[in-house]
Amino acid sequence: MDTFGKMLRLTVFGESHGPAIGGVLDGLPSGIVIDMDAIGRQMTRRRASGGISTPRKEADIPEILSGVYNGRTTGTPLAFAIRNTNVRRKDYDALQDVPRPSHADYSGHVRYKGYEDRSGGGHFSGRLTAVLTAAGAIAEEMLKEKGIRIGTHIRRIGKIEDEPFKEDRLDEQLQILADKTFPVLSDYAGMQMQQRILEAASQMDSVGGIVETVIYGLDAGYGEPLFDSLESRLAHAVFSVPAVKGIEFGAGFALADMTGSEANDPFIVRDGKICTETNNSGGINGGISNGMPILFRTVLRPTPSIGIVQKSVHMDSLRDTALTIEGRHDPCIVHRACPVIDAMTALVIADTLLEAEGRDSFVPEP
Amino acid sequence: MDTFGKMLRLTVFGESHGPAIGGVLDGLPSGIVIDMDAIGRQMTRRRASGGISTPRKEADIPEILSGVYNGRTTGTPLAFAIRNTNVRRKDYDALQDVPRPSHADYSGHVRYKGYEDRSGGGHFSGRLTAVLTAAGAIAEEMLKEKGIRIGTHIRRIGKIEDEPFKEDRLDEQLQILADKTFPVLSDYAGMQMQQRILEAASQMDSVGGIVETVIYGLDAGYGEPLFDSLESRLAHAVFSVPAVKGIEFGAGFALADMTGSEANDPFIVRDGKICTETNNSGGINGGISNGMPILFRTVLRPTPSIGIVQKSVHMDSLRDTALTIEGRHDPCIVHRACPVIDAMTALVIADTLLEAEGRDSFVPEP
Amino acid sequence: MDTFGKMLRLTVFGESHGPAIGGVLDGLPSGIVIDMDAIGRQMTRRRASGGISTPRKEADIPEILSGVYNGRTTGTPLAFAIRNTNVRRKDYDALQDVPRPSHADYSGHVRYKGYEDRSGGGHFSGRLTAVLTAAGAIAEEMLKEKGIRIGTHIRRIGKIEDEPFKEDRLDEQLQILADKTFPVLSDYAGMQMQQRILEAASQMDSVGGIVETVIYGLDAGYGEPLFDSLESRLAHAVFSVPAVKGIEFGAGFALADMTGSEANDPFIVRDGKICTETNNSGGINGGISNGMPILFRTVLRPTPSIGIVQKSVHMDSLRDTALTIEGRHDPCIVHRACPVIDAMTALVIADTLLEAEGRDSFVPEP
Amino acid sequence: MDTFGKMLRLTVFGESHGPAIGGVLDGLPSGIVIDMDAIGRQMTRRRASGGISTPRKEADIPEILSGVYNGRTTGTPLAFAIRNTNVRRKDYDALQDVPRPSHADYSGHVRYKGYEDRSGGGHFSGRLTAVLTAAGAIAEEMLKEKGIRIGTHIRRIGKIEDEPFKEDRLDEQLQILADKTFPVLSDYAGMQMQQRILEAASQMDSVGGIVETVIYGLDAGYGEPLFDSLESRLAHAVFSVPAVKGIEFGAGFALADMTGSEANDPFIVRDGKICTETNNSGGINGGISNGMPILFRTVLRPTPSIGIVQKSVHMDSLRDTALTIEGRHDPCIVHRACPVIDAMTALVIADTLLEAEGRDSFVPEP
Repeated sequence: MDTFGKMLRLTVFGESHGPAIGGVLDGLPSGIVIDMDAIGRQMTRRRASGGISTPRKEADIPEILSGVYNGRTTGTPLAFAIRNTNVRRKDYDALQDVPRPSHADYSGHVRYKGYEDRSGGGHFSGRLTAVLTAAGAIAEEMLKEKGIRIGTHIRRIGKIEDEPFKEDRLDEQLQILADKTFPVLSDYAGMQMQQRILEAASQMDSVGGIVETVIYGLDAGYGEPLFDSLESRLAHAVFSVPAVKGIEFGAGFALADMTGSEANDPFIVRDGKICTETNNSGGINGGISNGMPILFRTVLRPTPSIGIVQKSVHMDSLRDTALTIEGRHDPCIVHRACPVIDAMTALVIADTLLEAEGRDSFVPEP
Repeated sequence: MDTFGKMLRLTVFGESHGPAIGGVLDGLPSGIVIDMDAIGRQMTRRRASGGISTPRKEADIPEILSGVYNGRTTGTPLAFAIRNTNVRRKDYDALQDVPRPSHADYSGHVRYKGYEDRSGGGHFSGRLTAVLTAAGAIAEEMLKEKGIRIGTHIRRIGKIEDEPFKEDRLDEQLQILADKTFPVLSDYAGMQMQQRILEAASQMDSVGGIVETVIYGLDAGYGEPLFDSLESRLAHAVFSVPAVKGIEFGAGFALADMTGSEANDPFIVRDGKICTETNNSGGINGGISNGMPILFRTVLRPTPSIGIVQKSVHMDSLRDTALTIEGRHDPCIVHRACPVIDAMTALVIADTLLEAEGRDSFVPEP
Repeated sequence: MDTFGKMLRLTVFGESHGPAIGGVLDGLPSGIVIDMDAIGRQMTRRRASGGISTPRKEADIPEILSGVYNGRTTGTPLAFAIRNTNVRRKDYDALQDVPRPSHADYSGHVRYKGYEDRSGGGHFSGRLTAVLTAAGAIAEEMLKEKGIRIGTHIRRIGKIEDEPFKEDRLDEQLQILADKTFPVLSDYAGMQMQQRILEAASQMDSVGGIVETVIYGLDAGYGEPLFDSLESRLAHAVFSVPAVKGIEFGAGFALADMTGSEANDPFIVRDGKICTETNNSGGINGGISNGMPILFRTVLRPTPSIGIVQKSVHMDSLRDTALTIEGRHDPCIVHRACPVIDAMTALVIADTLLEAEGRDSFVPEP
Repeated sequence: MDTFGKMLRLTVFGESHGPAIGGVLDGLPSGIVIDMDAIGRQMTRRRASGGISTPRKEADIPEILSGVYNGRTTGTPLAFAIRNTNVRRKDYDALQDVPRPSHADYSGHVRYKGYEDRSGGGHFSGRLTAVLTAAGAIAEEMLKEKGIRIGTHIRRIGKIEDEPFKEDRLDEQLQILADKTFPVLSDYAGMQMQQRILEAASQMDSVGGIVETVIYGLDAGYGEPLFDSLESRLAHAVFSVPAVKGIEFGAGFALADMTGSEANDPFIVRDGKICTETNNSGGINGGISNGMPILFRTVLRPTPSIGIVQKSVHMDSLRDTALTIEGRHDPCIVHRACPVIDAMTALVIADTLLEAEGRDSFVPEP
């Protein structure tokens, strides 16, 4: 369903070319300052990026419909809507019977028995991530008050790698990433990546990549064993983002080649606090935070909308056909996914804190 | 929390050295045959494996406490318990103040404020996966009635790789894997893997690996966009299994190096049915099954319990110390994880079918 | 929280004097015809009533924001908003520190720590029932396709009683009630009730009453034992409606004076179908429908907004004070509650059917 | 489904004549003392009552299977089972095709398509309330630590009434009720009630009644508007108890005859605290506690198992028949329902506190 979370619950609605997209964020403590500028910054990061992305030119400013009074949350559901102003349903009519490869056109058609609104991807459109971003920005502000920060950078596009997160430099690294629309730690790597994207664009093709996320400042002891392990909840959240096809925590898939003695993170005391010497576990043991930064990487597939002619079929007649997707399309959405993954991460962590510490612990003194 | 699922819900309980572990499986349609042999076979696969694993010698036969009458489900909650017969709490007392690296000893201690039962890992013990396996075996039987089969093999241990799943040979491959306690497609690779495990054991160390799962026979149209995408739900389920640190669907992390034209799966018609030529999407588009086999790979970290002396700290005094974990421990749990991942997968798919087709569609004619 | 339901989930948002109120209805099967006229009729019934109610003169036409395409549900979340056009926040400012007796001003103030929007009742306003009504109207249309009808009439206001529902005349009685804004079976009783209401209005006072609801056409076998008994779910839903303070099924509180032999409903066969001779159980045994009409009665307290001077206190200074609530207020909301209770009932029953029969059973052939 | 609650979740399982009944209580904070004597006292109250009830002579001592260590909760799921020792499936075989009036035999038979275990009522048996009672006893202990007490007395059986709760004497009244197996405030009324029960028993009949519950010591500000109003959640919980057919809060159904000026509860200051002069709202405004005692009354139908010959039908052949229910049966379960309603109430209130104050606020300092 389109609701996520337990104490802090986000419900999402909308189709790309319908009247509006939006969300309802329920379970917020009252008195939280809603910083529309902070939301706007994340929305801007999601929307576009210097020359290499070509999103619709919609302002995407969420209108708050409820739950905010005098600039603070009331504690009742915070609903917001983003109008779709650039709606051109006819652009997509030609495609209706021919599913675009690796899009949800076919699977969605079977799921919804032909009643779906397929214009612009309908409810499957990447545009829906604007709703996640706005809701997550609110959760991020809540977490900052508790000293917790979240950041995501592009770890890799094609063969080009950014510097990794370094645990002793996270303060500085998160500062570097803040508000960047193409979030990399090394500007040189970033330039090469953008060149790779432009090259793909010139070939009417697209590229994918890997992003890396850190949760910094979360104490030990948050999470659950088994079904509500932090990994389970974070993975659930992150796979909600279209184009995500894999996630790994800490050393991740590299653990397959390691021995236990290599993979284990020895406990040590640093500055009077229990830490681990390495962080192959990505800050999570037994589903619960161990006080180290939580680290995970997510792979995003190349955008399936490409200009190159592709093979497809007519869904009704089952005839083979060739498909050319018209219009301009993003040659890469990896950088745009960063604020969305930040957002989903923030929603999970805020939810986890609400369970442990209760709603009232977030309410400021009047 | 310890409940998973929406229409079909599993609640898990138990500590490794408490009186019993067990589960409650709720939402089952009535009239489903409970094949204790089928459950037993999966339990056996989870428990042990020719020479290379050293589990506790408990029979692990679940006692059904409710929900079954005349060998069939009643439709009310099916509860079962597995007694812990081999309980030796004292074995673990020495460890109480010194957390084992990469175990949940420390994170759990903070989470539960020192009230946790840490004997044998307590609620974090891999032993809890017996409950998942038993419940999943029931879901697997439900799915077989609908023509859906699930299988997992060891894709890789260290540098040694098994043959991959082949879409045109899945029938045969699933047959090969059925009931294998060391589930590989190539027996030669399997022997090499076991040798690698024995080598690690001889070094008092452990190894990790990657397993590959297929869901075969699921039609297009199951799943949801966004939060309840098949990827989200499967990942959530699979990360509930201890030691899992990553998951990828279809081409997974390799998509980072691919272009859209390489990654897209062209639609074609085969035997009068819409298929895709490749399956880089792993059978899922937009969170919804597209009718191709669903394929994902999961990485399991090397078991953290190793005989080698490790660094740790006293949690109370914050003094450094060296820790030796006594007793015999599994040098590898990758093969044992296979039936557990099958089980979690079956629970997710059965739940998804129940939503679409309703509980009554599973009830046999009396 | 502000989400209700399991397979069919309604999320509600809004404050009386904020920008908009609205809802998101998720889990709808695709292809359901959305009859805006049917929704409008229920909205009209909720809004006003010939002379005796004085609601705000807002059209209350929900704008559908998503989930409908070509007049039918897409199967993705159906969101709608109703703009608040008649917003006058200043009317209420004087009240801010003095809670109105039997309103949520004080309890809400403590709950939300002073950050709530109290204008016009804020999120507690009866106006929110417009959202329930619109969502329920959609569920009612779904149920009609399955032959299930729901109706509520005013059973009593003050000492004046309407005719009760008669099981052998329900077809006709539901016809009589359809679209009535003051839903009674006996027009004579209705006139007397309206006179009683006008009398209360002239005294700047208000009156309460009892309404009776029937679910007609639901076969035996729907519902659950224990926590999801039909009574539990219906009561949960109905107590969501402001001003409801009691509910009883079948013979209800009168059962306290009956013996088992009087209260039991003997099984008989009528027209080749198993029925009960009496219906003291209100159509539910063991939480599950028994095929008889489901009958329950709900008590609505007199509206707490009255013109008479009342005692209250200053919340900050704890000084006693007298409070006069200005403006015109409803002397009775019993008749207006009828479509709202119909709506909540329809949501519960549709949810229950979705669990048993699955989402796909509701989707019409294209 | 058989799971109830949000932060504190109870899952129930079992059939009357199966191997065991039991429950899993999840979401408990760690470190809570488990007082088996306190649980036992409530179990005893539920089981029997001097001469007038004839329950099965089972000790009903729950065996704790998990979640307790050194007498305190570990914070992981607390599972318990109660063995069914007095199982005599053959007693019930004769009934299998002839449903007992006002039992769940017929509705359950349709719901579960004939696969249900009907022996002794199966999953519908009143015996399942032992599980609710045990779980609720744990929640009650949690609430006592926060200064909150819950009590239920028999308000009425037939025409015989007990004294009502008096807000200024609740301390004393709750003391009187504690541990009483026939919980009344007036012993004289209690004797008359028992006489009425014995009279019904001698006629092979049964009687119903009304019980009244108070929640004492809960501050203002707990609960939610709309769907999770305290009334909604309490009603949902209480209707889970078999035989409950109605619930009313505060003045309840009497509000139908009152005017707003009579029904409203004026705010006053007493002992420096905001109170209401009357309590017709039953301590709840807008779904949220207002600091006054929460008061509600529940009606319990006469037990449907009576010795008198009754009309019924053969479910298969649809022939009319006469049914005599053999064996001894409770002529009244009203008194036995009191600890069960206490239990369900405690679960709801503990859940509500956990949301507001968080899990950690309940954990004692080690």
